[in-house]
Amino acid sequence: MISAATTLRTMRERRPLVHQITNYVVMNETANATLAIGALPVMAHAGEEVEEMVRLASSLVINIGTLSEHWVESMLLAGGAATARGIPVVLDPVGAGATAYRTATARRILDVVDVTVLRGNAGEVATLVGAQAEVRGVESIVAGLDPADLAREASRRLSVVASVTGPVDHVSDGDRVLAVANGVPLLAAVTGTGCMSSALTGCFLAAKPDEPLEAAAEALAALGVAAEVAAEGAGGPGTFHARLYDALYTLDPDTLDERTRIEEL
Amino acid sequence: MISAATTLRTMRERRPLVHQITNYVVMNETANATLAIGALPVMAHAGEEVEEMVRLASSLVINIGTLSEHWVESMLLAGGAATARGIPVVLDPVGAGATAYRTATARRILDVVDVTVLRGNAGEVATLVGAQAEVRGVESIVAGLDPADLAREASRRLSVVASVTGPVDHVSDGDRVLAVANGVPLLAAVTGTGCMSSALTGCFLAAKPDEPLEAAAEALAALGVAAEVAAEGAGGPGTFHARLYDALYTLDPDTLDERTRIEEL
Amino acid sequence: MISAATTLRTMRERRPLVHQITNYVVMNETANATLAIGALPVMAHAGEEVEEMVRLASSLVINIGTLSEHWVESMLLAGGAATARGIPVVLDPVGAGATAYRTATARRILDVVDVTVLRGNAGEVATLVGAQAEVRGVESIVAGLDPADLAREASRRLSVVASVTGPVDHVSDGDRVLAVANGVPLLAAVTGTGCMSSALTGCFLAAKPDEPLEAAAEALAALGVAAEVAAEGAGGPGTFHARLYDALYTLDPDTLDERTRIEEL
Repeated sequence: MISAATTLRTMRERRPLVHQITNYVVMNETANATLAIGALPVMAHAGEEVEEMVRLASSLVINIGTLSEHWVESMLLAGGAATARGIPVVLDPVGAGATAYRTATARRILDVVDVTVLRGNAGEVATLVGAQAEVRGVESIVAGLDPADLAREASRRLSVVASVTGPVDHVSDGDRVLAVANGVPLLAAVTGTGCMSSALTGCFLAAKPDEPLEAAAEALAALGVAAEVAAEGAGGPGTFHARLYDALYTLDPDTLDERTRIEEL
Repeated sequence: MISAATTLRTMRERRPLVHQITNYVVMNETANATLAIGALPVMAHAGEEVEEMVRLASSLVINIGTLSEHWVESMLLAGGAATARGIPVVLDPVGAGATAYRTATARRILDVVDVTVLRGNAGEVATLVGAQAEVRGVESIVAGLDPADLAREASRRLSVVASVTGPVDHVSDGDRVLAVANGVPLLAAVTGTGCMSSALTGCFLAAKPDEPLEAAAEALAALGVAAEVAAEGAGGPGTFHARLYDALYTLDPDTLDERTRIEEL
Repeated sequence: MISAATTLRTMRERRPLVHQITNYVVMNETANATLAIGALPVMAHAGEEVEEMVRLASSLVINIGTLSEHWVESMLLAGGAATARGIPVVLDPVGAGATAYRTATARRILDVVDVTVLRGNAGEVATLVGAQAEVRGVESIVAGLDPADLAREASRRLSVVASVTGPVDHVSDGDRVLAVANGVPLLAAVTGTGCMSSALTGCFLAAKPDEPLEAAAEALAALGVAAEVAAEGAGGPGTFHARLYDALYTLDPDTLDERTRIEEL
């Protein structure tokens, strides 16, 4: 059942540990978003410790935004340990489609790890289901592909909950599709807000592991509502960015449910 | 003698260089805190240059928050060079107790490097003195152990000034214990404020190398007072975080001494 | 012809991709500055993908602020691919002169890569032309050397457009020298604003690749004017930093041209 408020309350009571192996650009941002919403972040990437660390965690977030070989190996180790323990995993395939290495790495992780939620933009997800996409760095355009269809197709082919973000987000478990219409354009003017949505997906999954479709949609709604609040009175992306953590931190569950715009298609 | 104001004035006159080998999550934050308080940060971690760099510095801060083997080797090299030159060293054993690798690495550094100040939370420090602690990622709870006793014990066993931070901080040289009661709860809602306190400890040590107990306590008081100022009017952790650098930068020495709450136990 | 407004308009229309291989401390900051001014950042450093990534980009920014051997190899690979394709390259030799490794690495990149613009402070640039400089970490002082002469000399000896930043910036193609007098002292209280100026140089070069002297000066003027706007009403470096992205994002081209203080010496 969709109720971002309930999941948020559960999360803030339990303060789940969310293990994140993410990129250099956004580590501080995803850790702060995790803290602000009410969970506990831990960043660890050494092969020597990732399996031990992930076993302490309630979810794992893997993000390939600034990947290199040692990091990929640790992602596979941590993902493998999470899979063995049934710990939910979020994969953010940043830049899949931009270079062969990113596409291959995302596929390699999907092969080895039981990914619960794949959270990416349309171009990244389209690349992983084999569709044509124009990917420019970490932004992308997919021509002539309905995002709801893309989410459903990605879910079926990749055996994940597919969470495709954009002006309207589409989340699918292969059967149902939820559209999330929260958010503001300023989100695209701050680097790492996509990565932040993946981190928050990990937080919501940790609090609601048995309903990943709903948890994934609720996470996007929470970020979107917080962004709407933060944008009011912001003078641009810098003050918006600072106010976004304030808004996540002070996000009232009832207000969240009132403002959440999740629609089942 | 305790006088955060005097140390702050000395630091701002001399602008000491503080070499930091720290984690990916907080590099920007500790560099900005160092600049804001009035010292000069330099971040360098390559084995090829850390020994040369640390010799230019007035103190070295080692933080194992996102460690991996190459980085640990550089920490040992830099720490060794600092020890040989009598340059004060701060160690922040982030997450010691959470994984065996972190605990072992912190011990390895303590063995090889002449650590002046060990700055950690109660769980991290308890782990390093062999006490039981529950460490969740980078947060921790230590049951039934008085933090003043913990600081004194850590100082004696590890031959360091032990700086144990929490709601009230306790700093000990094995004999005396100073309690620092500045700060606000919002500090815990921003990632890396613990790391920031270690960086500021490095700044104060650089300005007052002969009195590490006092310098360590003063650094925590300075961060705490700045946090108190920053929290007034902040809408949450994001704006608090931005205002924290403002408060460090505009921190008036006399106001600092007035608001400093350091008590000898 | 100098017109920051025209270059800014072109950039915002084309949204060029700017590939950045930069340091851990400022990755988030340079990505956000790039987005705020109107271009698209992409951060990628793996040897497996940098050549492919740079071919998608309109310019490449190489910054050695936290270098290590794998990263240097990737910088050389990416720089080589950019040179082969005629893609403009900005080099920021952070800390050249502070350690032998940094100086040697900057020279190695200048040898192998066709660097379009070298953007550094006076000490870093002086080191690379063989002059005496006192470099403290990443700050520097050059005694008795006129910065306009330094820029001209660096341009001639290193076959680059030399962009030497300081209280007044000097940019030279070996013949002409442009002095840029925008900016505020608060820029020096935030880490990575020098790196940000290199990133923005990459953005302006991408929009005006045939006039690198003008593009480099315009980029510095744009950052300087944005900083002037951001400083109005800022309470210190933290709020200034947040407001700087707002100011870059809302920078009006006409206002930029009015406030630009570029003078040909």
